[in-house]
Amino acid sequence: MQFRNSLRWTACLTLALSLVHADEGKWTPQQLLRFDAAWLKKQGLDLPVSRLWDPTRGTGLLAATISTGGCSAGFVTNTGLFLTNHHCLFGIVQEHSGPNRDLITRGFIAGSPAEELRGKTARVTVPHRFTDVTKEIAAAIPAGAADLVRAKAVQAKQKLLIAACEKTAGMHCSVAIFDGGLQYVLITTIELDDIRLVYAPPRAIGEFGGEADNFRWPRHTGDFAIGRAYKDGKPYQPEFYFPVARTGVKPGDFVMVLGYPGRTIRSMTAAEMANERDFRFQLRKEIYGEWIRVIEEKTKNNAKGATAVAATLKSLNNNHTNAIGQLAGLSRGRTLEKQTALDSAVSTWAGQQAGFAKSVEGKMDLDRLAGRRRGTATRDFLFQIIKPGPLALYQATTLVRLAAERTKPDAERDPDYMNRELPALSNTLERQQKSFFRAADEAMLDVWIDRAWKLRAGERIQAIDTRIPRDGIPQTVAALYNGTKVTDPVERMKMFEETTAQLGARRDPMLDLAFALEPELRAWQAETQTTDGAIARLRPLWRRAVIAHAGKPVAPDANSTLRVSFAHVKGYVPRDGVIYSPQTTLAGMLEKNTGEESFTVPGFVLDAARLIKPEEIPLDFLADADTTGGNSGSPVINGRGELVGLNFDRVWENVANDFGYNPEVARNISVDVRFLMWLLEIQKADALLKELSPAKR
Amino acid sequence: MQFRNSLRWTACLTLALSLVHADEGKWTPQQLLRFDAAWLKKQGLDLPVSRLWDPTRGTGLLAATISTGGCSAGFVTNTGLFLTNHHCLFGIVQEHSGPNRDLITRGFIAGSPAEELRGKTARVTVPHRFTDVTKEIAAAIPAGAADLVRAKAVQAKQKLLIAACEKTAGMHCSVAIFDGGLQYVLITTIELDDIRLVYAPPRAIGEFGGEADNFRWPRHTGDFAIGRAYKDGKPYQPEFYFPVARTGVKPGDFVMVLGYPGRTIRSMTAAEMANERDFRFQLRKEIYGEWIRVIEEKTKNNAKGATAVAATLKSLNNNHTNAIGQLAGLSRGRTLEKQTALDSAVSTWAGQQAGFAKSVEGKMDLDRLAGRRRGTATRDFLFQIIKPGPLALYQATTLVRLAAERTKPDAERDPDYMNRELPALSNTLERQQKSFFRAADEAMLDVWIDRAWKLRAGERIQAIDTRIPRDGIPQTVAALYNGTKVTDPVERMKMFEETTAQLGARRDPMLDLAFALEPELRAWQAETQTTDGAIARLRPLWRRAVIAHAGKPVAPDANSTLRVSFAHVKGYVPRDGVIYSPQTTLAGMLEKNTGEESFTVPGFVLDAARLIKPEEIPLDFLADADTTGGNSGSPVINGRGELVGLNFDRVWENVANDFGYNPEVARNISVDVRFLMWLLEIQKADALLKELSPAKR
Repeated sequence: MQFRNSLRWTACLTLALSLVHADEGKWTPQQLLRFDAAWLKKQGLDLPVSRLWDPTRGTGLLAATISTGGCSAGFVTNTGLFLTNHHCLFGIVQEHSGPNRDLITRGFIAGSPAEELRGKTARVTVPHRFTDVTKEIAAAIPAGAADLVRAKAVQAKQKLLIAACEKTAGMHCSVAIFDGGLQYVLITTIELDDIRLVYAPPRAIGEFGGEADNFRWPRHTGDFAIGRAYKDGKPYQPEFYFPVARTGVKPGDFVMVLGYPGRTIRSMTAAEMANERDFRFQLRKEIYGEWIRVIEEKTKNNAKGATAVAATLKSLNNNHTNAIGQLAGLSRGRTLEKQTALDSAVSTWAGQQAGFAKSVEGKMDLDRLAGRRRGTATRDFLFQIIKPGPLALYQATTLVRLAAERTKPDAERDPDYMNRELPALSNTLERQQKSFFRAADEAMLDVWIDRAWKLRAGERIQAIDTRIPRDGIPQTVAALYNGTKVTDPVERMKMFEETTAQLGARRDPMLDLAFALEPELRAWQAETQTTDGAIARLRPLWRRAVIAHAGKPVAPDANSTLRVSFAHVKGYVPRDGVIYSPQTTLAGMLEKNTGEESFTVPGFVLDAARLIKPEEIPLDFLADADTTGGNSGSPVINGRGELVGLNFDRVWENVANDFGYNPEVARNISVDVRFLMWLLEIQKADALLKELSPAKR
Repeated sequence: MQFRNSLRWTACLTLALSLVHADEGKWTPQQLLRFDAAWLKKQGLDLPVSRLWDPTRGTGLLAATISTGGCSAGFVTNTGLFLTNHHCLFGIVQEHSGPNRDLITRGFIAGSPAEELRGKTARVTVPHRFTDVTKEIAAAIPAGAADLVRAKAVQAKQKLLIAACEKTAGMHCSVAIFDGGLQYVLITTIELDDIRLVYAPPRAIGEFGGEADNFRWPRHTGDFAIGRAYKDGKPYQPEFYFPVARTGVKPGDFVMVLGYPGRTIRSMTAAEMANERDFRFQLRKEIYGEWIRVIEEKTKNNAKGATAVAATLKSLNNNHTNAIGQLAGLSRGRTLEKQTALDSAVSTWAGQQAGFAKSVEGKMDLDRLAGRRRGTATRDFLFQIIKPGPLALYQATTLVRLAAERTKPDAERDPDYMNRELPALSNTLERQQKSFFRAADEAMLDVWIDRAWKLRAGERIQAIDTRIPRDGIPQTVAALYNGTKVTDPVERMKMFEETTAQLGARRDPMLDLAFALEPELRAWQAETQTTDGAIARLRPLWRRAVIAHAGKPVAPDANSTLRVSFAHVKGYVPRDGVIYSPQTTLAGMLEKNTGEESFTVPGFVLDAARLIKPEEIPLDFLADADTTGGNSGSPVINGRGELVGLNFDRVWENVANDFGYNPEVARNISVDVRFLMWLLEIQKADALLKELSPAKR
């Protein structure tokens, strides 16, 4: 038996799915310069690479990519207009919405600059300078320092470098760690804090498909919004920007995805990855799943409760779905098996090279450390999720910590409690009230404590064991909520200013639980810092070997710094018998229009669609870019440096790519800028259209 | 804004999806001869059309297509071996399975002809002769007869023609009606009643995907089985057979699907189609849905009950899912709107032609009739579903009817109760016991009576209104089941022989309900016959116009007679952004292997798959053939007359094609014969393999 495939059919699949494919990698601007110019040209880059990044000036077109602190965005005009995702500017939309002005539902168009809406806390940073400070950091570490000392020394040096850098007004600085400590870079950015909303589509477009379509293809979401940055009250004039492309993309086209990807873990050894799988994602799947269940149950027939928990639920759902996708992807992609094989190949190779003995040892130490951490990993996870967890517990532990830290000199504090962070923290504690719904919060705490009771010996939490009886969790928790004032917004903001003694004198049961937890949380953080110190010592040793073994540039793990990924527009095969084509159109949005939640096309779009061929209006597209969280809103540009779309998601089969890149299914989802332009046309946003596409370029 | 598609991408989609496409149509053998030979050659037919059907002899290669009475099948050797679907020979598998011989789970391979397993009631018919008897039928209708008289005269003449035909021993005859009465054909077939099972795969292969994958693509079901027909104790030697192809199919290949499609309704007017939609499918969706719900509820924790209702549930689920698909397809395909437009175009055209005045009148009468029928359509549906419904009611009404019919001369009886039918009827009533589970049966009757109580005035059922109080349905029904002996198999078979007086004397409450229903059922059947008589008078008038307006051959609606459909192997676009490719492989079956029900790949297949590339073993494929129920097991042959697969399903988007053919989504699903051959290889069924593929042809 022989399975003869039609040659033409094979050629067709090649076109739809493979083509030339760019390598894995979220490249730093500096790494760009190490690529062969001919190869880049063959990929589809029409610009000289020096236009993207000029090493002599340390800047270039890539610097048109800005960060909103969490999302990426890109300047598209020299008048400060930038494009990002709808969900990235949603905060401003929310801030200016009210009972009589429902911008969330209706969307927003500023008819003139005067109508633009400033976001109270919105900020963007524009990359300005990258300075290698690896030597300075190394010099600050005392010789032979133990890991905790080492970690503290590195942290202290970072604080000094940042403080020095920020002496220049308008600059925002940070120290980024590459390859776990192989390189430290001081990043200077221009911070712009006058950010105004120019355009947002109706939520029905910006979030079309909602949770059902999240991480899914085919997608029909118009996840874009337009903002404008101001400086000194005038539109900011960026040196670099990506003009909106006048022609769109088609299958096979070269694109680059620019942005600030947050965190990937590809530099981990297989043993470390196993910890991430078994504790981060497996526990997230279990506990977040349980939280989602109880929140839904407690707010089932309660409109007020449902509104309060909506954002929490959305975030939990997103992380829960993501965790399921990570676990499924790891299993399907056999990622850990592949990583084990790679680790072993590098070890063997390094063992035979001069000068890499420490690398092999370092790897073994990393694995030993990973093995030890499993013993308390479930408890550690419970401590980590106090922050996204029940508000009352988060607030109580935060207030207790704040009171203690405030007594220290600023430079010696836990970085989260330094003076520069306090306004934001106060703001958070105030705003959280609108997300609080007691029945749901209480049920979440029940779940958390129940998990604490299930911990094995050796990682038990004393504060829980001694204060909350196992067979009386709901009753004890109810008593905590009955007695506490932490959940009262006025009292809470008073507590924000109080000393440890004052907080203690309140005899508030939730604060008392936080006081009981505090030494255990401190001990855990010290352990974590020790571990981080050890890893910062070991990882660079191992990465040296990995990079040398590769014999070509290796992109460092994502760390929220500026990166570029080369890609092509292409579909993929999610499973036998199915091909996902790389582009969707308005016709598909209309197909999905059921009138139910998240699948309701606004009337003005339906009306406009009747007059045209909806299958000719492009909506979203796939490419094989290497992206992760933080790439939301990333400008997607063509080989001429023009903006063709905005990245906003990854496909389901690609969720586990934080562990490793699989070219078969590594696809990011972008919204096509032509859909934005079409919407602006039918919404008659003429001034904006003109500003975005100044006649014949 | 312009959406420029890559030319290569367009070409690729053309290849995957469109290509040259054959027209709609389940053609009769006689119609084949009206096709242009050059066109057929261009489609991909290598054989001269006279090889398929020789008009002078009235037979040809198509006659290798046989009927199992419900399914289609095809001879593949001159030693009587035939291939059909697993589910078409499942009855024999079941019959020979027992606690110590689980052929259902394990499958079956006859090591030699001596081991083949004969099916007690299995029969196949081989087409022998087609005789046009339109004139004879017309001559039998008294001039100016009323519709009921007309219908009875046609029925009586059919009985006479069949009786005369069946005087030849071994012949099985029937009269088929084409285009609602435009043509009557006496079909003579050779009936073979010695049918033996030669091969069946394990159920896990033959039903892989179960209800979840039913009507779905991508599919990975090995829905095939092999039988052998015997005559006088020796393998039957058919004159024609389809040798198993040595090369398979690939995208774009020409195929023909042969078989006995059961019923389509494309010749209906839009008004008649609306009745089918609103009463057949909408009510099936509602009532079958309700039946499924109560059956599942009543057998939830009862293994015995679940086994008893399994077959009923499977059939209800299949019909229920189908109904949902029909309704969705009608809506999505805007089928009725299109039919209304076509009706109106034909009417306008016919109104301007000489000789078609009666056609236009006929169409208006059909529509008027359709309008009138809506008044009692819900009641009519309730009467129709007594047969697939609660067994006790079906059995009671059948026994009451039988006792009455038996007193009449054979030729005057309701055709279902003629002597030739009685052995099968007795058999049915006996076998039904294994499907009986009282709690479920009772709940189904509750649902049925509840619907009867909801009927509007003008279509009420007196027997229910007067005997079952609306507010005491469950209690009254429970009393019926407590008191009846109909559900006792021994008593029921006694009743089978009893007279009306004897049945009446039993004072059996279920029989008494049947006696009360009997005059209403009789009246309904007389109305139906009157309507059928009217339609038989009107439809041919209208069809003459429709066919003349088309100006080319028009395939008559399916009527369980031999048909051929021309097609090509191709995928389709089920929705924006998704392409279904036209072939699946063993790799996809392995992807679906969860170990859960219907998705468990047998161990021997997993073992064999480890030694090969599973993506190289073809499994199922799509083509754009025009099929319907009854095409199960249809041989799919290539342009050289060789068998490449067996049809076994339609895709979801194509379920509504009984109303009309939509080339965009009209796809039938076949299992690739190469998968059967591969299975036979790994199962080491060497003798069978050799018989199926005699060395180099």
